[in-house]
Amino acid sequence: MSKKLTSRAEDYSKWYNELVIKADLAENSAVRGCMVIKPYGYAIWEKMQAELDKMFKETGHQNAYFPLFVPKSLFEAEEKNAEGFAKECAIVTHYRLQNDPDKPGKLRVDPEAKLEEELIVRPTSEAIIWNTFKGWVQSYRDLPLLINQWANVVRWEMRTRLFLRTAEFLWQEGHTAHETKKEAVTEAELMNNVYANFVQNFMAIPVIQGLKTESERFAGADETYCIEALMQDGKALQAGTSHFLGQNFAKAFDVKFANKEGKQDHVWATSWGVSTRLMGALIMTHSDDHGLVLPPSLAPNQVVIVPIYRSEEDLEAITEVANAIIKDLRGSHITVKFDNRTTYRPGAKFAQHELQGVPLRIAIGARDIANGTVEIARRDTLSKEVVGLDGLNDKVKALIEEIQDSLYNKALKFRDDHITEVDTFDAFKTVLETKTGFISAHWDGTNETEEQIKTLTKATIRCIPLNGKLEAGICVFSGKPSKRRVLFAKAY
Amino acid sequence: MSKKLTSRAEDYSKWYNELVIKADLAENSAVRGCMVIKPYGYAIWEKMQAELDKMFKETGHQNAYFPLFVPKSLFEAEEKNAEGFAKECAIVTHYRLQNDPDKPGKLRVDPEAKLEEELIVRPTSEAIIWNTFKGWVQSYRDLPLLINQWANVVRWEMRTRLFLRTAEFLWQEGHTAHETKKEAVTEAELMNNVYANFVQNFMAIPVIQGLKTESERFAGADETYCIEALMQDGKALQAGTSHFLGQNFAKAFDVKFANKEGKQDHVWATSWGVSTRLMGALIMTHSDDHGLVLPPSLAPNQVVIVPIYRSEEDLEAITEVANAIIKDLRGSHITVKFDNRTTYRPGAKFAQHELQGVPLRIAIGARDIANGTVEIARRDTLSKEVVGLDGLNDKVKALIEEIQDSLYNKALKFRDDHITEVDTFDAFKTVLETKTGFISAHWDGTNETEEQIKTLTKATIRCIPLNGKLEAGICVFSGKPSKRRVLFAKAY
Repeated sequence: MSKKLTSRAEDYSKWYNELVIKADLAENSAVRGCMVIKPYGYAIWEKMQAELDKMFKETGHQNAYFPLFVPKSLFEAEEKNAEGFAKECAIVTHYRLQNDPDKPGKLRVDPEAKLEEELIVRPTSEAIIWNTFKGWVQSYRDLPLLINQWANVVRWEMRTRLFLRTAEFLWQEGHTAHETKKEAVTEAELMNNVYANFVQNFMAIPVIQGLKTESERFAGADETYCIEALMQDGKALQAGTSHFLGQNFAKAFDVKFANKEGKQDHVWATSWGVSTRLMGALIMTHSDDHGLVLPPSLAPNQVVIVPIYRSEEDLEAITEVANAIIKDLRGSHITVKFDNRTTYRPGAKFAQHELQGVPLRIAIGARDIANGTVEIARRDTLSKEVVGLDGLNDKVKALIEEIQDSLYNKALKFRDDHITEVDTFDAFKTVLETKTGFISAHWDGTNETEEQIKTLTKATIRCIPLNGKLEAGICVFSGKPSKRRVLFAKAY
Repeated sequence: MSKKLTSRAEDYSKWYNELVIKADLAENSAVRGCMVIKPYGYAIWEKMQAELDKMFKETGHQNAYFPLFVPKSLFEAEEKNAEGFAKECAIVTHYRLQNDPDKPGKLRVDPEAKLEEELIVRPTSEAIIWNTFKGWVQSYRDLPLLINQWANVVRWEMRTRLFLRTAEFLWQEGHTAHETKKEAVTEAELMNNVYANFVQNFMAIPVIQGLKTESERFAGADETYCIEALMQDGKALQAGTSHFLGQNFAKAFDVKFANKEGKQDHVWATSWGVSTRLMGALIMTHSDDHGLVLPPSLAPNQVVIVPIYRSEEDLEAITEVANAIIKDLRGSHITVKFDNRTTYRPGAKFAQHELQGVPLRIAIGARDIANGTVEIARRDTLSKEVVGLDGLNDKVKALIEEIQDSLYNKALKFRDDHITEVDTFDAFKTVLETKTGFISAHWDGTNETEEQIKTLTKATIRCIPLNGKLEAGICVFSGKPSKRRVLFAKAY
């Protein structure tokens, strides 16, 4: 906790990396590209999981668990999907170690224990799940299948960053099977809405809902719905995707059902996921040069109470008041911690809670006891006020709501201020390099133009917004006709 | 749902396998030895997880997440641990696939993408976690570390059975670090008690708490505490273990701390875990020839309501009554499902809920509506009674408590009836082959005797009971002196 954070203005990327470490969220491990999620970071992830899991169940989904490994022959069955992930797969080839005859006390891979067929550590589970669904679906009465899995997946990324891009990450992956195309599309849209609701209302991060272009689609999907958020440095972050998979996996794995007329048909599919990457979005949306800022919905502790005392008598009196406050707050379903550690001074505690983004800090000193007051400090605004004990509970409740709303509104204003309509490629490049953020521009709809813009500027089409209006125009790059604007940005 | 289960008397092992499949708990996958946990089975596992997680947090533990992979050099650092798991490790050797030049559309492992150091898929996480703890501990102020992880692990077992022994399984693994030996031993004992409480009070399975003999200890532990349960076929099942690891891992990974006197010392460690194997214990303790029997604490639905109707009007009237019952029951925190599927007849629904072990079934027909009654059927006793709507809520609450207690008491009686004291090896063998169960016998304390008994009878020492009294005697096998009886059994 000793050294100050690098400021965002100085080096945003360095600020992010330092913050993740200093706020005790995660750290790099001895395994290339794999992170350790530390208890404080994991507690935030658990809050996300609990809320998402509730939302999935409320929309009719059930959890299940499928194997970590995918046999190579299944992995390659859906060709586009396989091609999309082939270059980043961890592959199990052997199943036994033995003593190394050349190095006493050391082990080596037993060359006799080679697998007949290699196993891919799942980068995503469509293949193993669709191979399983084949046995679960005979008739329309078995549909829809609405399954979710909480799991770890591995994608062998070359350049990794804590939470944002790691070789192993935690996620949930929904996999559903339906009678009709319409039902599957509706499901993909439903989950896009669930994700948007969660990220906006729970994480206080505004998002734009849209469709990916063909080149940015999930490998094996006919359509990818996404939610796109904007980070403080003006780069976009894809926060969650849901895919309409058509009949691609049903055909690759021969999953057919007897419809109501008794005819055999392939089922229609979706898949959808969010991951520990959301932790990166959380950090880069709200935090400041003092450290993490957490929306109250995700804070492991929404309130921390710090006693300030010189004598044991002071501490006793403060503890009594603190306990009464805690009882009230917990009665109102507010999470609160009494930080009465004797191994740290109040200043060090203040610094830690600021760095870790606890939304509200209540300090109680001997004078407060005499006056019937406490000092409340808001993490988001860094403002403090002295408040009477009477009505403290209601005050805290109101502040918690206010902080949640205020964080969202602040992020929304920033985001909206950083959507810029441009009509020339010069303006496009200027905005991208100076103002940054989303650029709303006409595009001719071709892969070639998209690719050329990406090569020249590193900006990609983040999405074709779902609520975007049709508007005739000409492509900002090619000058060819366009029917609507799309959103470009540099992205994480 | 069609065919009847094989009876337990006919073939216990076959009964188990059929039950797991027919009750929709799990199934084998395309990956050798790896299972798919189906939604109904996973819902039971989630109930276990939720309760255990609460108990862990109430005893001061925090969750975190560590990498799936362990670099070989870390894996082999604690030699005994490495030796214990070396023969059952899945090993990642490559990180990329490429198009197979000989087989269009197929992939092969890219020989250029060989890892410099092989990665072991964690069979248990001591190595990777202790390598991480090294960076977390400097002084006594950083201790204790009380960490838990929910994760998947892989042990390449040759003979697998759903839930009982699978190549991949789900578990939690606690890993703690302490200042003193005494504190670490106390932690290992605490978790042994937590597991016993959970399994007895929540799963309704009586257990014996004990210590493992040296030969049955966890690889790398100085002492292993266990809870041992008895299945209906007279075989024991180890349901959870907690290990006092001494300073073995601290020394292997050089984890030292400055104590209160400023001197450097290695920390003391524990680890402890339970897994999806508990699902096997659950099934084999309570279930019967009709299918699964669930203690209400673990039932995804404690009550199911089945309407029996001929006309739409009947169904409407029944639905109205059912909704009122559901509202009351949910108000009492009882989980209840209204099975109003139109695609199945009442008989098929009854059969399914019986097979899946729903503790209470409420059937409502048109005559019940006229009489103000319902029919309640208990899954555990298969008894039925007609009950008035007045006081139904209290009746259901009482039945749920009664079923939970009754299942425990029934299992306890069976277990206690199957602990047999023997004083000769002939009696030992006879009991083992006829009555089965636990055999309480004197043992001379040597590995040799233990090994010989195992070779001759397949019985192992399940534990040295913690509450066992000291009692001088002579070893049932060697005739040498013994200080106490230990428990032998054949085991899963």
